[in-house]
Amino acid sequence: MTRIDLNADMGESFGPWTMGDDAALLEVVTSANIACGFHAGDWDTMAATMARAVDRGVGIGAHPGFPDLQGFGRRQMKMDPASVGRLVQYQLGAAQAMARAAGGHVRHLKLHGALSNMASADGELARAAYAAALEVDPDLVLMVLAATPMEDAAKALGASYAAEIFADRGYAEDGTLIPRGQPGAMITDSEVAAARISDMVRDGAILTAGGRRIETRIDTVCLHGDEPSAVAAARVLRARLEADGVVIAPL
Amino acid sequence: MTRIDLNADMGESFGPWTMGDDAALLEVVTSANIACGFHAGDWDTMAATMARAVDRGVGIGAHPGFPDLQGFGRRQMKMDPASVGRLVQYQLGAAQAMARAAGGHVRHLKLHGALSNMASADGELARAAYAAALEVDPDLVLMVLAATPMEDAAKALGASYAAEIFADRGYAEDGTLIPRGQPGAMITDSEVAAARISDMVRDGAILTAGGRRIETRIDTVCLHGDEPSAVAAARVLRARLEADGVVIAPL
Amino acid sequence: MTRIDLNADMGESFGPWTMGDDAALLEVVTSANIACGFHAGDWDTMAATMARAVDRGVGIGAHPGFPDLQGFGRRQMKMDPASVGRLVQYQLGAAQAMARAAGGHVRHLKLHGALSNMASADGELARAAYAAALEVDPDLVLMVLAATPMEDAAKALGASYAAEIFADRGYAEDGTLIPRGQPGAMITDSEVAAARISDMVRDGAILTAGGRRIETRIDTVCLHGDEPSAVAAARVLRARLEADGVVIAPL
Amino acid sequence: MTRIDLNADMGESFGPWTMGDDAALLEVVTSANIACGFHAGDWDTMAATMARAVDRGVGIGAHPGFPDLQGFGRRQMKMDPASVGRLVQYQLGAAQAMARAAGGHVRHLKLHGALSNMASADGELARAAYAAALEVDPDLVLMVLAATPMEDAAKALGASYAAEIFADRGYAEDGTLIPRGQPGAMITDSEVAAARISDMVRDGAILTAGGRRIETRIDTVCLHGDEPSAVAAARVLRARLEADGVVIAPL
Repeated sequence: MTRIDLNADMGESFGPWTMGDDAALLEVVTSANIACGFHAGDWDTMAATMARAVDRGVGIGAHPGFPDLQGFGRRQMKMDPASVGRLVQYQLGAAQAMARAAGGHVRHLKLHGALSNMASADGELARAAYAAALEVDPDLVLMVLAATPMEDAAKALGASYAAEIFADRGYAEDGTLIPRGQPGAMITDSEVAAARISDMVRDGAILTAGGRRIETRIDTVCLHGDEPSAVAAARVLRARLEADGVVIAPL
Repeated sequence: MTRIDLNADMGESFGPWTMGDDAALLEVVTSANIACGFHAGDWDTMAATMARAVDRGVGIGAHPGFPDLQGFGRRQMKMDPASVGRLVQYQLGAAQAMARAAGGHVRHLKLHGALSNMASADGELARAAYAAALEVDPDLVLMVLAATPMEDAAKALGASYAAEIFADRGYAEDGTLIPRGQPGAMITDSEVAAARISDMVRDGAILTAGGRRIETRIDTVCLHGDEPSAVAAARVLRARLEADGVVIAPL
Repeated sequence: MTRIDLNADMGESFGPWTMGDDAALLEVVTSANIACGFHAGDWDTMAATMARAVDRGVGIGAHPGFPDLQGFGRRQMKMDPASVGRLVQYQLGAAQAMARAAGGHVRHLKLHGALSNMASADGELARAAYAAALEVDPDLVLMVLAATPMEDAAKALGASYAAEIFADRGYAEDGTLIPRGQPGAMITDSEVAAARISDMVRDGAILTAGGRRIETRIDTVCLHGDEPSAVAAARVLRARLEADGVVIAPL
Repeated sequence: MTRIDLNADMGESFGPWTMGDDAALLEVVTSANIACGFHAGDWDTMAATMARAVDRGVGIGAHPGFPDLQGFGRRQMKMDPASVGRLVQYQLGAAQAMARAAGGHVRHLKLHGALSNMASADGELARAAYAAALEVDPDLVLMVLAATPMEDAAKALGASYAAEIFADRGYAEDGTLIPRGQPGAMITDSEVAAARISDMVRDGAILTAGGRRIETRIDTVCLHGDEPSAVAAARVLRARLEADGVVIAPL
């Protein structure tokens, strides 16, 4: 029986500004990647999001990003890997405290935005970030992009990890994501996306735009929460997976 | 035999800017209050300061402040007490993670600057901050200004706490600090300050400028680290206490 | 013939987060108070908002606030008045540059949130902020709360100013706003609010909740833009004023 | 008669943290590049620095950088060039207002740190930053690294510009700076550095580490102000230039 976790980014409001429909997404996912105050989120938003996740029994993840609110952590910053490690520790610790206060705990870690993009292409950076996080909690589950240097880094560190694919993104022939802006980058038809993900999950392989099949471990599927149609698409995916006999379960 | 802890604020550098002589102060104190990134400190500074404190066997404290780097956390901000509680949790958690990564742990919490000033006059605010911190770690030692609503709040919460007096500040007749800028606010002669503190510690009482004696629990003495003469004054105080038979020991 | 300016806060988005329907509001108002990056707004948001205001022929105002994004500039910060003056100069200058680049210019200045609240009760603070702004541009029009120490400060400085009343707020018997949260603070029925404002504008007087009439200069009416019903209410007010023969015109 | 301007970065303190000896440097230089609050400086620091520069008759420059206090603007951030342009406008405007309030005006613009490094290698970025600045003030003098795409961008825009060489940095055979950390990057002997700069200035050419001579326009020499020996080295350079008959004069 195939099992899969569904994850989404949450807690991306900041101060007076709201983003995403966290309450609705929490009905669909089994893991929440919660922003830690550097690219989004603040102490109040984090506390509220943690409490909601605990209430719904959804797994809590720290979702650290670059210190760049205006850019939402999506702009690359060239930082020393050791400093990135400490940046991750700081945000992870803040998330742990907020989770504990909400009666939960941080079970997984997922890097955000440009930090994730950079670490998925740069094994040294991934390793620095992950090794630092494990110094804080050796039992942390690292959420890594499947079949990238991130996964290699997690393996090399002997860490627990969850390999992730994206619900609405196309894959190039080398197994990397087709960059946004290029044809095939986004799969906008949620039925098509759902069918494709269900195939990948049951098959244990990434299916590229060109039809190639790259065998890889798949533990979790990333849903996007910051677009208006996100919740509807998430529901379509979940329903399709369940109809195909896949068990939706937390990490 | 009288025991006393000596504490000082540390890790107050930020990015390219340095402040204080932490290495020298760590030779004198038994507790370090480490800035948590909101009024001073950053992930790199915190990590370096934690490592030094662990290395010297000095007790580690989280020292949260208002989100106000430019004002160094010394400007009052009117925040909702519940939000202040979460602000404290966030910074405490970040400090815990950095301490853990450095091989240590956060043993105490001391509020910084204007947040401390406000909480020392407002029991509800003190209680909100402390209750929130205890949700994260019920064994945390709260460092409170002796004989203020802070101490009452710590007692009411049933928390472990350490009552603090200030090495270089004059006390008014009601036991509060004489505000900076007023005559007698600062005791600049380090020999005079040391003799006075030694008397207070051995006597278990605050001695006011007017000569009044206010009996109170005294567990720790705050040394200031951000002025050029700070380290010399700290050494004078420590020597005097030891000469008077007081045991300098961590909380 | 009675003339009135209609103003609203704008450009309150930040990075990935949007707030308000600026495009719709710009069809209704004659003055835009544009956030300057400290409590809301950023360089990209400011540029886009300036360009839209220039395009619609709406007067541009700098709308400086406290350095507090998370609190949206609504939390009081106790700052030295001279430093507040420089804070205002900094934000005003940034707004002037963005306006110039958009083909416009900053004609008025309106303080935001807690800074406005504090200055409306503290003439010294108002004077420090306004005097500093006039050092940058002596021809700037200061938008002041009618019949408060702000208006007195503007007069004492010999500045051009515009006295403002609020479209949807109730007034206490002393002419101050009824604090939010108290009965009568908000006038939620937009027809009632519009009729009341039209009376005040034509009569040249604030009408209090208790029925008192306080004669005062009235140059502009503040519409709120950050609530969903804001645009509809703004249109109701504008229509009513026009029906009553009031000329809607910029400062 | 050869004329040269001497420039240095200033106003790099922030809040409670100080950096550099601006008062001493202002006795030596003829142009001050003043930080604008994003990588260093704040409204109070800027105002004080502007006032000192006006008082000494030193030319005022805006010195914008990336929004990265912790990294002092020295970390590359991958930003959209158009957004960089607006970032420059914002900081330039703030500097103009502070200068005006101090009785002076911003005469030149120099990009800081990583933003300068990136623009000196990327003509499109340089052009975006400079074109945006000229929209705010078409008479602004752009301070560019001599013989780089920055100089080409300034020329292409038809702008007034000043070509700059560095007092204490070695040049590679292609005319670019030898990267920090490589042999020959820094010229630490201030007498050697001064003699070399005097040769370059009088010769109108960059002299490379390998002895090559690259003819280029040279209008200004950059002194570094953030190291302890900076002021002494600056004095040595100024004395040598004057001894060699070079006239030290503002842009």
